[in-house]
Amino acid sequence: MKVKALMDTKFIKVYPEDTVEVVSKIMHNRKKFSTPIIDRSDKLVGWVNSIDLLIVDDKKTLIKDVMHNLDTIIVLNKEEPAKNAVLKIVKHKVVSIPVLTDDGTLVGLVRNCDITKTLAKMYDIPVYKIFKSLNSELKGISWDELMDSAAIVTKQITGENITGKEYESRIKKSTFGQAIWSCGGLERFFTGLIKIGEIAVARKVSHKSIVRK
Amino acid sequence: MKVKALMDTKFIKVYPEDTVEVVSKIMHNRKKFSTPIIDRSDKLVGWVNSIDLLIVDDKKTLIKDVMHNLDTIIVLNKEEPAKNAVLKIVKHKVVSIPVLTDDGTLVGLVRNCDITKTLAKMYDIPVYKIFKSLNSELKGISWDELMDSAAIVTKQITGENITGKEYESRIKKSTFGQAIWSCGGLERFFTGLIKIGEIAVARKVSHKSIVRK
Repeated sequence: MKVKALMDTKFIKVYPEDTVEVVSKIMHNRKKFSTPIIDRSDKLVGWVNSIDLLIVDDKKTLIKDVMHNLDTIIVLNKEEPAKNAVLKIVKHKVVSIPVLTDDGTLVGLVRNCDITKTLAKMYDIPVYKIFKSLNSELKGISWDELMDSAAIVTKQITGENITGKEYESRIKKSTFGQAIWSCGGLERFFTGLIKIGEIAVARKVSHKSIVRK
Repeated sequence: MKVKALMDTKFIKVYPEDTVEVVSKIMHNRKKFSTPIIDRSDKLVGWVNSIDLLIVDDKKTLIKDVMHNLDTIIVLNKEEPAKNAVLKIVKHKVVSIPVLTDDGTLVGLVRNCDITKTLAKMYDIPVYKIFKSLNSELKGISWDELMDSAAIVTKQITGENITGKEYESRIKKSTFGQAIWSCGGLERFFTGLIKIGEIAVARKVSHKSIVRK
């Protein structure tokens, strides 16, 4: 995923010659805590945070006299990996980052709330779906056999007595994010999942040998 | 994980009787885009965003006359699951959310940048570590055998010719987050991982049968 897939292309247009009064009203009306400043050819020239404007006494002051200059602003190129946007937001604790083309034209903003949304969505995959792909991978093992194995592993790890059916209804309600948190980490979740697959295969094999005999 | 594990307990103390002028300066100096308003017993009574103060003409106005009242504020209880903080930040597109005890005392703030940091960190687990736990789960299969199986699966999926050693050096540099993005989703990553485990086991079994013969 690239930055351009993550950016918001709707942003307010604010120019260096605008007054603090005008920009304050725009930011309030459009609920923007910060805004990029551009020239008439959409090139980024500066940045303004609402808290900077709070301490300006003369509201007729021009934005160019209070804005952060281009060389002090964190920016992203639209072709960069989206991961860089996450790293920069975390490192610099900013609310949004302007996205530029190679020639410095402003084409969008990456907002922290959109990053949170994207990251959260990745976690919102149902555990059920992960088990469905595990099931389709383990040839010859039925869904019920997989659930029974999951119940056995749960008993081994937590001591809890649970049936395959109960396990199934539990994972129908749970997401990957919840599962990681309740297992105590990603690796433990994986370990559990691998154990379940193994036990399902082992039971199948031992069942087959019995049948053959 | 609960909200209290995620919250920032350092926040500026702002009271309803403070003037807009005073609060503007505090918010600017401490770089806060929004702030909770509390009474003298630390109970939350309101909320102020920097953009609200931008349009106040008389700087001697009291905060209580411009603040958002308690009944309109998004809040969290410190005992709630951390997941709720993520959901509320995403749904209401806010920068931070005040965290309360049962009696309404303000004890912290959950900030969007901290949530991003936590979510991003969960993705930053090295793929190497996940393979190490897969390895310890698959009894009797060596690390090199696992890497060779991974190279085989890579070839099956991507057509790329890669050795076990090359695969190993690749996963040493890669994180879970990158792996999900490059596989095209969590389920595909899991499917690949399960395939690798299966092939490792199958190769071991067939090798043993050959040795026995």
